[in-house]
Amino acid sequence: MIAVYAPGSVSNVACGFDCMGFALDEPGDVVVATPQDEPGVAIAAIHGDGGRLTTEPRKNTASAAVLALMRRLKTTRGIALTIHKGLPLASGIGSSGASAVAAVVAANELLGRPAPMDVLLECAMAGEQAGCGAIHPDNVSPSLYGGFILARCAQPPDIVRLPVPNGLACAVLHPRMEVETGAARRLVGDRVGLQDATRQWANVGGLVAALYTSDLALLSRSLVDHIAEPKRAGLVPGLAGVKAAAMAAGALGCSLSGSGPSIFALAPSLDIAQSAGDAMRRAFSAASPIESDLWVCPVGRQGARVVNSQS
Amino acid sequence: MIAVYAPGSVSNVACGFDCMGFALDEPGDVVVATPQDEPGVAIAAIHGDGGRLTTEPRKNTASAAVLALMRRLKTTRGIALTIHKGLPLASGIGSSGASAVAAVVAANELLGRPAPMDVLLECAMAGEQAGCGAIHPDNVSPSLYGGFILARCAQPPDIVRLPVPNGLACAVLHPRMEVETGAARRLVGDRVGLQDATRQWANVGGLVAALYTSDLALLSRSLVDHIAEPKRAGLVPGLAGVKAAAMAAGALGCSLSGSGPSIFALAPSLDIAQSAGDAMRRAFSAASPIESDLWVCPVGRQGARVVNSQS
Repeated sequence: MIAVYAPGSVSNVACGFDCMGFALDEPGDVVVATPQDEPGVAIAAIHGDGGRLTTEPRKNTASAAVLALMRRLKTTRGIALTIHKGLPLASGIGSSGASAVAAVVAANELLGRPAPMDVLLECAMAGEQAGCGAIHPDNVSPSLYGGFILARCAQPPDIVRLPVPNGLACAVLHPRMEVETGAARRLVGDRVGLQDATRQWANVGGLVAALYTSDLALLSRSLVDHIAEPKRAGLVPGLAGVKAAAMAAGALGCSLSGSGPSIFALAPSLDIAQSAGDAMRRAFSAASPIESDLWVCPVGRQGARVVNSQS
Repeated sequence: MIAVYAPGSVSNVACGFDCMGFALDEPGDVVVATPQDEPGVAIAAIHGDGGRLTTEPRKNTASAAVLALMRRLKTTRGIALTIHKGLPLASGIGSSGASAVAAVVAANELLGRPAPMDVLLECAMAGEQAGCGAIHPDNVSPSLYGGFILARCAQPPDIVRLPVPNGLACAVLHPRMEVETGAARRLVGDRVGLQDATRQWANVGGLVAALYTSDLALLSRSLVDHIAEPKRAGLVPGLAGVKAAAMAAGALGCSLSGSGPSIFALAPSLDIAQSAGDAMRRAFSAASPIESDLWVCPVGRQGARVVNSQS
């Protein structure tokens, strides 16, 4: 058996709607792959989802990803998956992507590692497509590779791995509510103002330059979302107050993670990320009776990895 | 007297509408500053403009830039400017910006270099505002600093200097026609499709990453304009054929320079830039009876510089 951990991820990263993402160090999902006699893929068990995820192999993101891999490798081996969800569902931190990534990496290990990383990425994306009806390379690729990534193009995938400045850390506040990604997308609309769009691509350029040069002041100035967040702000109660609290505590930037409801902040150190996270949680509690979770961690330099193997 | 050369520049650079630009090595403008007894700024002569530029100090871009500098420095000295236009007017390669930059740098030298570069940038932009009614930091800043720049924000200016990969060269084809910048802007409209905008900012991220890593394949994939060029293509006869000819000759990308009519191509070497430029010129001649000029040069690593001084 092979157990693989894949971290959650923050996509959009304020200015990079649908193209930027970074890996968390934690939390993440673990998928255990074990050989089975019967050809194909089965889901043996799912833990931590409250019984909500399907175990139908073609519809579950993780098993659908492994099916894509096995088709690609033309193998008739049999693999059973056990999924341990460490990431909350529909939380905006790449939960389905992490399961798909952990599953393909575990299956690939079990098969003797025949597939290179770019094939694993495509199969994980195919799993997301089957399970969620949409692909999110800006979640899947950081979960697989770690670090910051630019998904320049989704189909065919054109993934650029970007450097992570030393010490860069993040806080993720997760309000215990769910945001349906499709509804959040419809809020953004099909057309955007040219001036807002121009600011957005100038900020993407600034963010990428800041990552290469470790210029945290530039990074901070670039972490502004002129496109999605203004339209989605109403989805999460108290968002403005949470952002203000994070910035007052020293965060470099604070915005929705993916389409929310999670809210991330980036900070120059783990200590400041902790202060920012605590301040975010207090601000959220003051604004809403909804319970919340808080994670504070370095930006995850490592992507999916084997955490336990036994043959 | 101090003579300063400031190079022309290519703005937009395909994907970076209103925020990316690079300096040409040549052509450019030369401005000569000489002391005069009368306080303030006068234009002694303008050569190479066919008599079309105003010599009214508050309305000419170059003198207006120097007036902004003198206000900033609170000086009552007198300076006369002689402007030698090497850049054609309204050509899309930063002609007015280069005159403003050369003038402020020359005046600053004459005054003993009291102002730092960021002040010179602001004064050159003020000169463009006075002379053209608009500011173009994506032209003015490469003309001043040289190299590739990201103008993350125009007001206040937030200019990021980006690395230039070794050998990177360009061809600029200038059809002898004029495009009015305001009309070219109106063609783009006020609103753009979200999908096009998303591709655009992913490409800006790709272009910036490619410059830091000298990844010319990524640079080439990123040099696509989903926003302005599709709307402006009708402004320049034969644009599609010129682009195709450049790419067939080995260019990394080819698009309108600024709002046109000039068309630039980037290439991995000066030789390939020359081949691409020759092919562009042949394609343009086949499509239109309009005369054209061709410049082939390295991306200009050096911005404005003193070319001759005498005290």
